[in-house]
Amino acid sequence: MPPPMILASLYGVLIAIGAGAFKLPFATTEPITWSDALFTSTSAVTVTGLIVVDTGTVLSLWGQMILAVMIQLGGLGLMTFAVLVLQALGLPVGLTPQLYLREDLNQTSMRNLTRLVGTILRVVLVFEAAGAVLLAFSFVPDFGWGMGIWHAIFHSISAFNNAGFSTFTPGLVPYSADPLVNLVVPLLFIAGGLGYVVFSDVFRERAKWSRYTLHTKIMLAGTAVLILWSVAMVALLEWNNPATLGAHESAGVRAMVAWFQAVTTRTAGFNTTDIGALHDSTSVMFISLMLIGGGSTSTAGGIKVTTFVIMILATIAFFRRRRELTAFGRSIGLEQVLKVMALTAISVILVFVGVFAITAAHEGDFLDIAFEVASAFGTVGLSRGFTGELNEPGRLMIMAIMFLGRVGPLTLGFFLATRTIPRVRYPEGQVHLG
Amino acid sequence: MPPPMILASLYGVLIAIGAGAFKLPFATTEPITWSDALFTSTSAVTVTGLIVVDTGTVLSLWGQMILAVMIQLGGLGLMTFAVLVLQALGLPVGLTPQLYLREDLNQTSMRNLTRLVGTILRVVLVFEAAGAVLLAFSFVPDFGWGMGIWHAIFHSISAFNNAGFSTFTPGLVPYSADPLVNLVVPLLFIAGGLGYVVFSDVFRERAKWSRYTLHTKIMLAGTAVLILWSVAMVALLEWNNPATLGAHESAGVRAMVAWFQAVTTRTAGFNTTDIGALHDSTSVMFISLMLIGGGSTSTAGGIKVTTFVIMILATIAFFRRRRELTAFGRSIGLEQVLKVMALTAISVILVFVGVFAITAAHEGDFLDIAFEVASAFGTVGLSRGFTGELNEPGRLMIMAIMFLGRVGPLTLGFFLATRTIPRVRYPEGQVHLG
Ligand SMILES: [K+]
Ligand SMILES: [K+]
Repeated sequence: MPPPMILASLYGVLIAIGAGAFKLPFATTEPITWSDALFTSTSAVTVTGLIVVDTGTVLSLWGQMILAVMIQLGGLGLMTFAVLVLQALGLPVGLTPQLYLREDLNQTSMRNLTRLVGTILRVVLVFEAAGAVLLAFSFVPDFGWGMGIWHAIFHSISAFNNAGFSTFTPGLVPYSADPLVNLVVPLLFIAGGLGYVVFSDVFRERAKWSRYTLHTKIMLAGTAVLILWSVAMVALLEWNNPATLGAHESAGVRAMVAWFQAVTTRTAGFNTTDIGALHDSTSVMFISLMLIGGGSTSTAGGIKVTTFVIMILATIAFFRRRRELTAFGRSIGLEQVLKVMALTAISVILVFVGVFAITAAHEGDFLDIAFEVASAFGTVGLSRGFTGELNEPGRLMIMAIMFLGRVGPLTLGFFLATRTIPRVRYPEGQVHLG
Repeated sequence: MPPPMILASLYGVLIAIGAGAFKLPFATTEPITWSDALFTSTSAVTVTGLIVVDTGTVLSLWGQMILAVMIQLGGLGLMTFAVLVLQALGLPVGLTPQLYLREDLNQTSMRNLTRLVGTILRVVLVFEAAGAVLLAFSFVPDFGWGMGIWHAIFHSISAFNNAGFSTFTPGLVPYSADPLVNLVVPLLFIAGGLGYVVFSDVFRERAKWSRYTLHTKIMLAGTAVLILWSVAMVALLEWNNPATLGAHESAGVRAMVAWFQAVTTRTAGFNTTDIGALHDSTSVMFISLMLIGGGSTSTAGGIKVTTFVIMILATIAFFRRRRELTAFGRSIGLEQVLKVMALTAISVILVFVGVFAITAAHEGDFLDIAFEVASAFGTVGLSRGFTGELNEPGRLMIMAIMFLGRVGPLTLGFFLATRTIPRVRYPEGQVHLG
């Protein structure tokens, strides 16, 4: 079986195990259907966060713990998880995952595999522990020591893995004016969304920008620009919407909600305001952000920031009549553009087919449907309220899109990792475009 | 001034002249506003066919004649039109348009410029004359000799130029069961949508498929596949919709309406059924067809069939781990992928910005808005009824999108035509995608 098939099957097995676990009597406070269990498990493993049963009330504490484990396993990524398991079992790590990991780490040789796994483990543990401790300062006063700490741990795991699940029924809306939550949760999911490659690079080179790899530079600069853009746009569009930012008297709180809701949209999926009450224009902008997503080899979904940046660079290069792409003093090979093209094309086709299939199978407002599909593809988890309305075929489709949104780019990585030399060279033909 | 600016300005001037003409007292049966006149002129010059005043009742016979002239000038394309004018005036044709035309005709040398212009003129005259004669058989019995022949001429011009305007208030709905109209009108707009490059090639090589250029092969094969796909989909989705295909008793008529409505959607924009009554799923499929459009150097809009085909080929090549694109025994250079990427990116961004801007400025159903924007970008002219609801900012935006949809790809052609060698070569960097 080729590696991508194995990976996809592994994800499928994990989802099935999760669904079985959620069906255990002690996992829920009331019986849930297999459909509910499977949807919840898929949403957790793909770190999406769309829900059909309320995490805070329907899942018991045991159920929430199962959910946290599923999120952590799904968020680590199967590639990394597989290597960790193999190492823990003392088994040799095969050539294919090693090649992929080497590809992941750029200039790193095969021997640095252990260092990567070490980096990942360290990063996860440090961030999630720090996040839990900090969030406890907000949650313990409201829920007491026991549940306060549990809420802090759960939200730290959910945030760093960009899962967007919350043990609170209204999500983080009650903490929309809490500065600590508004700082810690976004820092966790932004960090988690950058990707281990970036962490590894930043750890190795410390704060020396000039020595970062091209990938790290594009990721950091691209993420910064996307954050500034989205915060400004949310503030601009929603400042006076009485159902969202306008619900808060203070300009400071409005700015805080704008910040939180803007950064969470690319992939984390938490909300501190009512997503269904956003203007249509804001929803359209959110759809574009959800499709872009976060970083490669991270817990984020979407076509990824690097893919988006190279698409923009290619467009600019084209307008400037350049045949070569450059960024930060490095050229980007045209075969990279082929990858970008393919990734973008399959993504656009997937989203189109998803929207088409759901409108064909289901009554519903078109914007709600498009938003839901983009949310599932970007493994974001924001919803204008359509998840609850989904019928069985609709649920199946959203589950399939979440699965492809998470598995697709990862497994495609295997295709990217191996290069073949074409056997026949054809004479070049000319085609008119546009 | 760079050539693309000149071209855009020429279009602008033509639109302004058209608007002035529609404001003439004898052009309309009742006074129309400048906004109406400008919108109509823009829609005509960009061969879109979206209307804010009824062509059949508000425009006088003179107004309809002005409209036909605007459509013909807009449909010919400014590039070709400019060359025709220069030649008619006996002025020398500059190097830039010649280079572009040579690029257009593939293996043709500079001396064959006259042949291209000859081909275009011949193609236009032959098709439009034949179309008018054939359509007269349907229209003369209903409207008498005078108006019957005028309706035939107008629809022939409108069809061959993919304009989609109709002098009948309900469009071609009354002729939905007329076999002649269902054959002649689609043949005209499919031929017009293939592009002059394809005509030139087919004329030169007659029926010898093996000697056609790569461009011609991709266009003919791609168009055939798209037609089969869209007819099958429309029939499948709408067969039992009582407001569209289901309104007709006979299966033959239903098949005929499915055929007509499927082939008209990529860019022609005529309708023989109620577009607003289509299912949402059909509307989503129509949006994708409108974005794809027709052929380069044709009267069609959209990203173009060749661009779409190469996008698909690039995706397949990527999945097959090929670094080289091939089609019909010819390789397609990776720098072509750069063009495809850029064209697709600006198109996606343009459509997103358009939808965003209109939802921000205007109340309205999201599907109606998305459909309207796709229709304007693809210069299609189908509408779910939103054109009539547009306020002034909305009209301006749709006009801008029609303009960019028509001018954009053409002027971009100039960028494509010239190639620059990069002055500095940078070392290659590696970026993680997806
Ligand atoms: K998420
Ligand atoms: K049209």
